[in-house]
Amino acid sequence: MSQWKQIQQLEIRLLEHVDYLYDDNFPMDIRQGLAGWIESQDWDSAVNDESMASVLLTNLLSQLEKVRTQEQNFLQRHNMKIIQQQLQRKYTTNPTAMSRVISTCLKEERRILASACTQEQGALEKSLQN
Amino acid sequence: MSQWKQIQQLEIRLLEHVDYLYDDNFPMDIRQGLAGWIESQDWDSAVNDESMASVLLTNLLSQLEKVRTQEQNFLQRHNMKIIQQQLQRKYTTNPTAMSRVISTCLKEERRILASACTQEQGALEKSLQN
Repeated sequence: MSQWKQIQQLEIRLLEHVDYLYDDNFPMDIRQGLAGWIESQDWDSAVNDESMASVLLTNLLSQLEKVRTQEQNFLQRHNMKIIQQQLQRKYTTNPTAMSRVISTCLKEERRILASACTQEQGALEKSLQN
Repeated sequence: MSQWKQIQQLEIRLLEHVDYLYDDNFPMDIRQGLAGWIESQDWDSAVNDESMASVLLTNLLSQLEKVRTQEQNFLQRHNMKIIQQQLQRKYTTNPTAMSRVISTCLKEERRILASACTQEQGALEKSLQN
């Protein structure tokens, strides 16, 4: 199961933490639309490697272009175009910033998932002791 | 049929004109989510009436809040929250600007619909003459 699918199964209280991770710097539409692709890229290394970060930005934009041209829904297609323009404007001259944002989001998601797991384990042990 | 439903039935060439009307100043998600409500408000008068524009902004935000709390989908709920924050930040101190943007968008949509109608009529007359 992708990390993003696991995230969506969290209880609302924890989902609110995820909510705060996403804004214009990394729109949640992209996180959801390209979940598998995003999780399979090495954002951590790209944070300190500008040429790698630049390739990742180009690839992300072409993944988005592919999704946009296949999208039948007018509103979704429009939103994809807006996001492509936003990312291009924001990161073309500073691609490592995008890698940093995505790397941080993915790490934070893993931290939230781990804390959910620890809480569940704690509750399970408590119920076994009683 | 709401104006927004008519818009969505336009051919792609004309939809592209509509596409350019919407950005962060008036996100298309709101245009679609509150289509009927938006079309029933008097934005034209509010452009020159700050207190009326302020009431319309408050009402728009509470309409959005209602839609957001009823929304089951995590991504849609998140996007609604981001849009609420954007609008609040952008228009609280200048509500007539929002009325002007919405008024202009609705007028432009009507112009695009009218031009589509004229083109259809022209094509129909031509086919009747042949």
